[in-house]
Amino acid sequence: MRNSSKEKYKVAVLGSGNWGSVAAKLIASNTLRNNDFHGEVRMWVHDEILPSGEKLSTVINQTNVNVKYLPGVKLGKNVVADPDLDSSVGKIFAVRDANMLVFVTPHQFVDDVCKRLVGKIPGDVEAISLIKGMEVKVEGPRMISSVISEHLGVDCCVLMGANIAHEIAEEKFSEATIGYRVNTEAAKRWARLFSTPYFAVTAVQDVEGVEVCGTLKNVVAIAAGFVDGLNMGMNTKAAIIRIGLNEMRAFSKRLFPSVKDDTFFESCGVADLIATCFGGRNRKVAEAFAINGGQRAFKELEEEMLKGQKLQGVLTAEEVYGVLQKNKWLDLFPLFRTIHEICTGNRPVSAIISCNEPQLA
Amino acid sequence: MRNSSKEKYKVAVLGSGNWGSVAAKLIASNTLRNNDFHGEVRMWVHDEILPSGEKLSTVINQTNVNVKYLPGVKLGKNVVADPDLDSSVGKIFAVRDANMLVFVTPHQFVDDVCKRLVGKIPGDVEAISLIKGMEVKVEGPRMISSVISEHLGVDCCVLMGANIAHEIAEEKFSEATIGYRVNTEAAKRWARLFSTPYFAVTAVQDVEGVEVCGTLKNVVAIAAGFVDGLNMGMNTKAAIIRIGLNEMRAFSKRLFPSVKDDTFFESCGVADLIATCFGGRNRKVAEAFAINGGQRAFKELEEEMLKGQKLQGVLTAEEVYGVLQKNKWLDLFPLFRTIHEICTGNRPVSAIISCNEPQLA
Repeated sequence: MRNSSKEKYKVAVLGSGNWGSVAAKLIASNTLRNNDFHGEVRMWVHDEILPSGEKLSTVINQTNVNVKYLPGVKLGKNVVADPDLDSSVGKIFAVRDANMLVFVTPHQFVDDVCKRLVGKIPGDVEAISLIKGMEVKVEGPRMISSVISEHLGVDCCVLMGANIAHEIAEEKFSEATIGYRVNTEAAKRWARLFSTPYFAVTAVQDVEGVEVCGTLKNVVAIAAGFVDGLNMGMNTKAAIIRIGLNEMRAFSKRLFPSVKDDTFFESCGVADLIATCFGGRNRKVAEAFAINGGQRAFKELEEEMLKGQKLQGVLTAEEVYGVLQKNKWLDLFPLFRTIHEICTGNRPVSAIISCNEPQLA
Repeated sequence: MRNSSKEKYKVAVLGSGNWGSVAAKLIASNTLRNNDFHGEVRMWVHDEILPSGEKLSTVINQTNVNVKYLPGVKLGKNVVADPDLDSSVGKIFAVRDANMLVFVTPHQFVDDVCKRLVGKIPGDVEAISLIKGMEVKVEGPRMISSVISEHLGVDCCVLMGANIAHEIAEEKFSEATIGYRVNTEAAKRWARLFSTPYFAVTAVQDVEGVEVCGTLKNVVAIAAGFVDGLNMGMNTKAAIIRIGLNEMRAFSKRLFPSVKDDTFFESCGVADLIATCFGGRNRKVAEAFAINGGQRAFKELEEEMLKGQKLQGVLTAEEVYGVLQKNKWLDLFPLFRTIHEICTGNRPVSAIISCNEPQLA
């Protein structure tokens, strides 16, 4: 056991986008002052050539700033950008000797990254996923944490919450929730690794609940954007967020009976939902959809407002609808159902507020 | 029993301010089309002389509009304004033959109104309180619904929720929660009386939980205003609202062990909290307090921004602090505690975000 042998925990951050860079900054501030951890934090950079002709990883190591994805913010001198994830030739590479792996790549790259790591990391490595992008497929939900666990045979926690990255980079107070399966000691260690006076982390034994929240909130944010676009006022918006929170809760429990109600009172639940329904691009593009009376399709707005990138909430709404349809749950989730029907042009935007008939006791 | 004798339910609305007028409008639309109820809805008006020299009650009955407190909105022809609450001389007065009483006066007048009704209404009358202003005293909480029950010896439900009155008057979609003690039939009847396609009412068996939410949310809104004034961003605001919701939950349960977690997922809980923390005057004045760095006292800001009216959240924060202090609970409620300490100038506004240290699992 590492603890008994006093071996230190060595952290590798896999991913160096906006959120990955902020995560590396948080972690590096803790590994410096906590003797349980190696000071150095390796951050794997999927390298790219900057307009200056230099490599991104080189510039990060020279300036200590991720000039492309988190400009202006010092990551900490103990963050080492490493373009080599898993080298079988070089002696130094990102995951070498690491026993705590932080997954924070774009979600479409998780499979590839995991495949490259198979056989190259020991079984007692601990992992955590900061990646949002769980899929809710008819054939069964595909959690990112499970994908990592299955590929690598390791335990994988998740960290989610009301975490707009640039606000955390500015050291404005935020909270986050760690979801873990059974290993309480690992969860505490992850909490120590991430917690700072401006980043308050709580661990709950509900990995599914935490990860599902991070996905379903984007669906509710579409509804919030519709209400904003319809100019319905604060009562309606608060009602739609509340109904959304309750459908998130009910839907999560149908997918995973172990999901706990208390999880929705954590940062990953109600707080992330509030932040996403008042900020964020799902809300924003949905608002534009409503303002245009549904006459401009999401595809068109995505091209214009997101340079063609797909809106996560619209994709997840479609997946959720498939699950509702297959299980004959459509009538049990009037908000989720209606969101998808509006997104696809099958109902007018105004249907968002008529989907909930008064509930007589 | 009224039901077996086919006697109809007759409703009196006691109060004719902004929210009372909207309540009368909602109720009147239902009594017209539902045969369980008398069509006519009596609305007691604490009469006043308008600048035109006419009586408010006379103008309401002539125009069907409460020109002073809800201008521009038709209440329904079956709403009858009555300046006589409880006449012992006249034959017609507001509560005559009424068996459903809706209390919606300013909270400081409840005692007086109840005293005037003692002995004048039968014991099988049902009451509901729409009044926010429960007091959280050291000697024990003083619920408005209990005050009404004790004075009149009748059962009293409450109705709370994300209910900005003018939005409901405009028939924008809202939700509300009825809290009841034991009488499920009465709760269903109240829900039928209030529910419309744009006003969705749910009843829960938790009168204390519902009423406490309506009071404590104002305290959290003060914190939300501080965060806005400090320009802390969405993560922090969402975190403070979440922490506030959880302190509301924990505090309510300490006052009333019967309070249910589920109540906080209702409109009276999370939805009203969201609406109050993003709109409302508690948030607004607290924001001004923070922008001025605490250099201008609440008293001064209240005089300027509220024409001297006291801010409910500041008063309740003081009451809550007294209860925390008496019970040695100060350390258990760091947000509630800090809000009061900031309001009284004993801590800087910035303390609002340092009150929550990272919680290690």
